[in-house]
Amino acid sequence: MKKYQKDDLVSYTLGAFPSIELIKQRPQDVVVVYQSSRYEHAEELAHLCQKHHVPFETNDKAIEKLSDKDNVFVIAVFRKFVSPLSQGHHVVLVHPENMGNFGTIVRTVAGFGLKDIAVILPAIDVFDPKAVRASMGSLFHVNIQTFASFEAYREVFPSHVLYPLMLQSATYLDQMSFPKVPSALVFGPEGNGLTDKFSTFGKSIKIRQDASVDSFNLPIAVAVAVFEFTRQMR
Amino acid sequence: MKKYQKDDLVSYTLGAFPSIELIKQRPQDVVVVYQSSRYEHAEELAHLCQKHHVPFETNDKAIEKLSDKDNVFVIAVFRKFVSPLSQGHHVVLVHPENMGNFGTIVRTVAGFGLKDIAVILPAIDVFDPKAVRASMGSLFHVNIQTFASFEAYREVFPSHVLYPLMLQSATYLDQMSFPKVPSALVFGPEGNGLTDKFSTFGKSIKIRQDASVDSFNLPIAVAVAVFEFTRQMR
Repeated sequence: MKKYQKDDLVSYTLGAFPSIELIKQRPQDVVVVYQSSRYEHAEELAHLCQKHHVPFETNDKAIEKLSDKDNVFVIAVFRKFVSPLSQGHHVVLVHPENMGNFGTIVRTVAGFGLKDIAVILPAIDVFDPKAVRASMGSLFHVNIQTFASFEAYREVFPSHVLYPLMLQSATYLDQMSFPKVPSALVFGPEGNGLTDKFSTFGKSIKIRQDASVDSFNLPIAVAVAVFEFTRQMR
Repeated sequence: MKKYQKDDLVSYTLGAFPSIELIKQRPQDVVVVYQSSRYEHAEELAHLCQKHHVPFETNDKAIEKLSDKDNVFVIAVFRKFVSPLSQGHHVVLVHPENMGNFGTIVRTVAGFGLKDIAVILPAIDVFDPKAVRASMGSLFHVNIQTFASFEAYREVFPSHVLYPLMLQSATYLDQMSFPKVPSALVFGPEGNGLTDKFSTFGKSIKIRQDASVDSFNLPIAVAVAVFEFTRQMR
């Protein structure tokens, strides 16, 4: 047992909430669930693990070793899995840089009922425990597929209508009328956004913003675009 | 010179970006601007400070002392100020708990062009350097006023139409039609949201969300509500 590294075949959930989501959503991928001897809901957790045929043990040493923080009482070790995207609407994240932002985006996208997130490499490790934690376990509710490049994504999904979010676009999100066809909302990295070439893909859009502010942060931009898009899809 | 404490009459900006916003927006409140001898844009900064009659010095010791991080090259010390809310639309944050979230919310609200944020105490310190930093300097573009209680806020602004955001509301944000009158969007703390009594104030609303997700995080909820509200106000 050692600290998580990107090349590991397993990762883990830090905390009861994401661990419980994992056990419920993807029991087949759970290697083992560790709980602290100080965890208050040990019986319920044992019951949940039994129900889903998931190995379970009280192991303070494992908790201490894998956790950075004091307030973690449950950790589940799970095999990294592949969950290919469906033909539904996609959120495409090009080179996301920040774990916490990524987790928040997954939680937000799942919250608005979309199920498919493409991640274009290079990018943060989608299975890093920090990303899993920031997603509040919603990582186990959506399909996340990584692609070596945006072109590789397009080869697999050539007919999704593309909507790159770009500050330099001429069309405001609040003026858009999205046709009800399989669509992909495309977002660039935190630092610099999408490169110019994306303005030639599909129909670029921007979020109306006051001149006093440089830009919205990435999870905010994703939230607002996905809110408006899903509002129109209903 | 010492580490920031909540009772101090001054606070400071960490980093060039928020410092420059401060100097431009509120030069009268700047005590002194410190820059690192390693700062690459020293001449431009000196010029900006001279233009706004703001004291300015190269002082590595001060930078080192006030900063937690290595990559801070500019720090401005400023007097905490009072900026009373206007009669325009308000965002009301009841007991916000997290500095980073607060800063992100300020940046987002300013980005959507609203100018007035009420903070109901107890709450995080709105002038904490972490909040200033997370706001990316947009704290200096908006009015932020603290109130001892929600009732105290209502005494000063009795006629704003209230829209408490509550998971237990019966009305979805995407079904709302906001009349064009001075309005206040009201948000509860990160942990538990608004208490039940708020459902009797004005017209409560909720954001439509998938059952798989517990709730949206606070900056996301604020962003989506303010986006939709300002969209309708245009």
